[in-house]
Amino acid sequence: MDPGVKYIEIPAHLSKPAGTPGSRLLEIERAKASFSSDDLTLYLHGKEHLERVKRILPVLENEPAFDKSRIHFMSRTDKFKAGLAKEKRLAQLLTELDWSAKDHALAEDMLDWPAAFGLHNRWRLPRHGPRPVRSKRNEEQAPEQLETDRTFFAGSYRSMFLKTLAEQSNEEQLKLFYEPAKNFEIIGCYAQTELGHGSNVQGLETIAVYQPESKTFKLQSPSLTAMKWWIGGLGRTADHAVVMAQLHTPDGRDGKLVKRGPYPFVVPLRDVKTRELLPGRTIMDIGPKAGYAMTDNGAMLLDNVEIPHINFLARWAKVDIETGKFEKPVNARLSYGTMTYIRANIVQQARMVLARSATIAIRYCAVRRQFADRDAPVLDGNKPAETQVLNYQLVQHRIFPPLVQAFACHYTGKEMFRLYEENQTAMADGDFSRLADVHASSSGLKSLCTIMASGAIEECRRACGGHGFSLSGGLASFYADYLPQVTWEGDSYMLTQQVGRYLFKTFRVLLADRDAPMSSENRTRDYILRYISDPEAKASAKYAGDLADPEFFIQAFGHRAAYLTATALRKRDIERRTWNSLLIDIFRMSVAHSQFVLVYNFARAIKTDKDLQSQPALLRIMTTCFELFATYTMDSEAAEFLSSGYISPKQHELLRNRVHALLADLRPQAVPLVDSWGIPDYQLNSALGRYDGDVYPAIVRFAQAEPLNKTRFNVNIHETELEVGPEMGQSKGSKL
Amino acid sequence: MDPGVKYIEIPAHLSKPAGTPGSRLLEIERAKASFSSDDLTLYLHGKEHLERVKRILPVLENEPAFDKSRIHFMSRTDKFKAGLAKEKRLAQLLTELDWSAKDHALAEDMLDWPAAFGLHNRWRLPRHGPRPVRSKRNEEQAPEQLETDRTFFAGSYRSMFLKTLAEQSNEEQLKLFYEPAKNFEIIGCYAQTELGHGSNVQGLETIAVYQPESKTFKLQSPSLTAMKWWIGGLGRTADHAVVMAQLHTPDGRDGKLVKRGPYPFVVPLRDVKTRELLPGRTIMDIGPKAGYAMTDNGAMLLDNVEIPHINFLARWAKVDIETGKFEKPVNARLSYGTMTYIRANIVQQARMVLARSATIAIRYCAVRRQFADRDAPVLDGNKPAETQVLNYQLVQHRIFPPLVQAFACHYTGKEMFRLYEENQTAMADGDFSRLADVHASSSGLKSLCTIMASGAIEECRRACGGHGFSLSGGLASFYADYLPQVTWEGDSYMLTQQVGRYLFKTFRVLLADRDAPMSSENRTRDYILRYISDPEAKASAKYAGDLADPEFFIQAFGHRAAYLTATALRKRDIERRTWNSLLIDIFRMSVAHSQFVLVYNFARAIKTDKDLQSQPALLRIMTTCFELFATYTMDSEAAEFLSSGYISPKQHELLRNRVHALLADLRPQAVPLVDSWGIPDYQLNSALGRYDGDVYPAIVRFAQAEPLNKTRFNVNIHETELEVGPEMGQSKGSKL
Repeated sequence: MDPGVKYIEIPAHLSKPAGTPGSRLLEIERAKASFSSDDLTLYLHGKEHLERVKRILPVLENEPAFDKSRIHFMSRTDKFKAGLAKEKRLAQLLTELDWSAKDHALAEDMLDWPAAFGLHNRWRLPRHGPRPVRSKRNEEQAPEQLETDRTFFAGSYRSMFLKTLAEQSNEEQLKLFYEPAKNFEIIGCYAQTELGHGSNVQGLETIAVYQPESKTFKLQSPSLTAMKWWIGGLGRTADHAVVMAQLHTPDGRDGKLVKRGPYPFVVPLRDVKTRELLPGRTIMDIGPKAGYAMTDNGAMLLDNVEIPHINFLARWAKVDIETGKFEKPVNARLSYGTMTYIRANIVQQARMVLARSATIAIRYCAVRRQFADRDAPVLDGNKPAETQVLNYQLVQHRIFPPLVQAFACHYTGKEMFRLYEENQTAMADGDFSRLADVHASSSGLKSLCTIMASGAIEECRRACGGHGFSLSGGLASFYADYLPQVTWEGDSYMLTQQVGRYLFKTFRVLLADRDAPMSSENRTRDYILRYISDPEAKASAKYAGDLADPEFFIQAFGHRAAYLTATALRKRDIERRTWNSLLIDIFRMSVAHSQFVLVYNFARAIKTDKDLQSQPALLRIMTTCFELFATYTMDSEAAEFLSSGYISPKQHELLRNRVHALLADLRPQAVPLVDSWGIPDYQLNSALGRYDGDVYPAIVRFAQAEPLNKTRFNVNIHETELEVGPEMGQSKGSKL
Repeated sequence: MDPGVKYIEIPAHLSKPAGTPGSRLLEIERAKASFSSDDLTLYLHGKEHLERVKRILPVLENEPAFDKSRIHFMSRTDKFKAGLAKEKRLAQLLTELDWSAKDHALAEDMLDWPAAFGLHNRWRLPRHGPRPVRSKRNEEQAPEQLETDRTFFAGSYRSMFLKTLAEQSNEEQLKLFYEPAKNFEIIGCYAQTELGHGSNVQGLETIAVYQPESKTFKLQSPSLTAMKWWIGGLGRTADHAVVMAQLHTPDGRDGKLVKRGPYPFVVPLRDVKTRELLPGRTIMDIGPKAGYAMTDNGAMLLDNVEIPHINFLARWAKVDIETGKFEKPVNARLSYGTMTYIRANIVQQARMVLARSATIAIRYCAVRRQFADRDAPVLDGNKPAETQVLNYQLVQHRIFPPLVQAFACHYTGKEMFRLYEENQTAMADGDFSRLADVHASSSGLKSLCTIMASGAIEECRRACGGHGFSLSGGLASFYADYLPQVTWEGDSYMLTQQVGRYLFKTFRVLLADRDAPMSSENRTRDYILRYISDPEAKASAKYAGDLADPEFFIQAFGHRAAYLTATALRKRDIERRTWNSLLIDIFRMSVAHSQFVLVYNFARAIKTDKDLQSQPALLRIMTTCFELFATYTMDSEAAEFLSSGYISPKQHELLRNRVHALLADLRPQAVPLVDSWGIPDYQLNSALGRYDGDVYPAIVRFAQAEPLNKTRFNVNIHETELEVGPEMGQSKGSKL
């Protein structure tokens, strides 16, 4: 955020902002802290992570290929090239500095430049890679080293390519494809989505037919809508692809072709040396998007392309090379584990998206002043002419929720990884009892958290006023780059049906038998049982103090989720309504269930987290954050709590007043709290959110680097020439 | 949306999408219409407008300078140049084709390229220009021609520049500044906002001191935060500016300087011939933003700049040339009229933003198919493998509301112009009784409609799935360009305080005296009086049929607005709470009041609009749209209706079910309804929203034009070279 080139000089005597400097304002804010920001940072991120930041960040900041100051001034073509250069340099550093997968993941986070080597580098593992469950019957024994490699992709570029190769290759294929891919000898992409087929994998058109006579698969795109589309890295970069295609094998009755569903194939695209396209491949970049300018999302038609038998990834499913006889994989449910894992990552990522948005908005609103406020606090002994924007209650109501939502996502993300681990271990032992709950919650949370986080970026951007619209602010481009999260990995609206199915099923089971066997730790069962035993339950809160009990919110959010499920289930099972006519109800059920999970995990941390219990100052501030999260969320969704009769209008009033009081409580802690997330300026890349508060000079430096400022333009409407010549600058003032 | 250049050819036999073509799908949709789209178009826009479109649109479509096909592939610099070329050509056409202000306004609408000659070209008048009210005492007589000119800026580039010159110049200044500006001999901008001062005009830092000895004003930026910032057209284009500066005159006691507040000055910036910057001006473009790439928003420091006495715009306020004695303008309230007018324009614009978003999403969702649905309708005698996305209830719930909100804004926009006219006339006669209500409603509506419209663009974009993220879809860039509306002309969050003040005041007055004099047509008074006479009123609806009465919603929304006002007023007047601690309550009051106005005007049209009464098919469909608008809005805000006790949980259930039923009712009419808005493909500029439904080939053509596709890239991580050479294309398929 400090562009090197300056075309226009600012007169030295005019280079200081008026009034109390931003740096001083933030200093005052930080002095108000009721806790140690450093302690909270350590609590949130852990020592290992902080040491890693200390080691990795300076490397990035000093690497010319990773200089962020010019990026917003580049054309798409130049951005793509900068991205490619970044990918290459990062790949070199991995070896040069012997970076681990976690180091790499952190570097990608700080850089924040999703680029040519992988659209999917945001889906990664902060602590441990996913562990593919091995079917005991079907598994060839792999060496230990491989097991490590199979988890390596997590923090990596090309992750879906490597991931699929690692998870779906047999031993021979690992050597043939995975090893060279890992060493950057081949560059790959993962080609699933088609022009006319997004969410519905079963609907893919691309066909792969096995031909025993030539021992080859023939791949064909049957139409324009079969064109592979949106594929990250396919446009200009990849020379290989894992292509998902409808497998057809000639082992039906009388040797007829049988459709076997979508399976992965390794398809070479370009000559690795000359980079020329191989025959039958029509490939292109799909053009500019709202964000992701560095990534060459690509399109591809395959026309009569033949690949050898070995290119069908055969770790789980198999096609006999001689006869073409198909052997299906053992347990389809295994893949749900990976999905859960990816979604846990999305929730963990949402936490940082929320924190980053809040950091920028809260710091800038502490520096920015607008309008006089009679009640505004005195600064350095003087009454300021204008008040800090952060003092406005309405501003607090817009930008404090993202801050406390970040903490909510923090605890739930942690819990999701724990459940993922537990479930993977259980599944490896043949125990699938946790799967449904873990899968449903992860679907609902993916939906809720991506919608919440994207909304928060934009709300924080607006709260920055006009300057939020400039790319110097760092939020507008961040929003554009984050948006795909709402759509991919299960569209966040359609995905809620997974939650609906699970809640209906669980409710039906428990309605029939309250002692139906389920995994011991199942909060969904708990709240449904509570509801079934007392559907007319009412909240007992009478005083503001009653809202200090975390249990109040666990009960309330549980009751609401169960109430919505019961209401929709009645329509489904008694009124026999169509599934489609319940989609809105189901969406609301999913939101309610997911908010319950967020509230539950946050509340549990407040009550039982040992690190927190041993640090009173942290416990105090986390408790305030929890209370704001719980009351704000409940107030935002008040209609459903009122409609079920669970709370009265009077209790709603109590709740709303409590939200307002908590905003005021949190006000002096807002800057120290965002500091605690420890997001470095290099990552924020924002003139508004700078740690030092020197906002206005940074905005001006950004403008000074705009290339347009090099040129004088011709505005005479009778002349078509657009340029006059170079800008000559300006001298010191004088008379007109 | 049909880029001319194609770098990559699609094999001819693969150029057809699978399944029923989009064109056929839309044909089927259109055949379902229960009304004539053409009749509705005529009803909405009027004959004059449609004939204008017929005349102007072909000119734009055939003008090379207005070709939209390449724009998304350009760098910022090239976009700026394309914008400048567009401005010049448009200025020529104005003369060549003798276009009226309305023709010009329409052309800007269709082009949708806010560019170098004026950030403010969206604020314009569809029917008539604002009529500055003349103070009878203070006005020099202007010739008739001038009065026309004073309204001319409405449909124009540089509108705030011309507008200020037209409204604030005396006769001499009109000749000196306005005439050459109008004829493009000088190009101007309007410089008010400063780096550190957005909303608060009184807080501006820039100083203008009158010096009687030299008969000049000296302008000075005292600090970096005084830098003029965000000024449309200032960065590279303008050679003159109207600068708002704090006037200081030497007519205090003992000849001391007295601060008189912000006033407009004409400041030359560049030599009109050489385009060189004049001394003392530091000027630059502020760099890239989320949108508005064609516009050179600029920054400027003034250092010891002197301008002659005549450059102070002196139609209303005056500074004596000899003594420097200041004479203040007569009636400050007059300017509220203009604000009302601008805000009425913003509401009228929001209507088209909503309609345009809905058009793209609804047409594309009628063409796009995802997943099988057992209940999906049969098409052309065949059961389709996947169902139209438009059939999903949850999708309808996301994209039908913008459609019906567009109609709501249509009626309220019309009403705002009527009230504006009426109020201007009354004010000219010294009657200011309408002003407060008109001003408050226009503030609240500006806030609500911009937040609603910006949200709708993004919701519609997401409903387009992955393709919504591509710039080919037309919504992502539209969103970015629309966003400033939320922030400028009164930040849509802070602005609600205007409504709060008015509602508090009105409530207090009526509480003290129910017969207090107000303008006869004051709906605010009506709903407050109803509330005061029966604060415990309850909705009477028992059956779905009861929700068919428009009066039900007028009563309900009025009661809610009054209830929120009463609740907040109690905190203010009895609990003596600070204004700041009520900002959230006040925001909610503003939303409630503005939604009441939208519901009221829509309901009144349904009940009394003569054009509608005479066309039963139109009346029928508009009634359905009204019902969906009213029930959906009420359901979205249900917490407040429940909390006041106005509706019961059971009535809420009734309401929600009615929303779902209305979505299903509207489903077959959705495509004909968006067609009725008559937005041409040229304006939509969307591969997804094309009238003909040929979506997929259009998306592919967009990709084919991406310049990156001309080059092969070097991905070898050990080589720094990024390019290999030109892309060689591909041949027909063959064996690997």
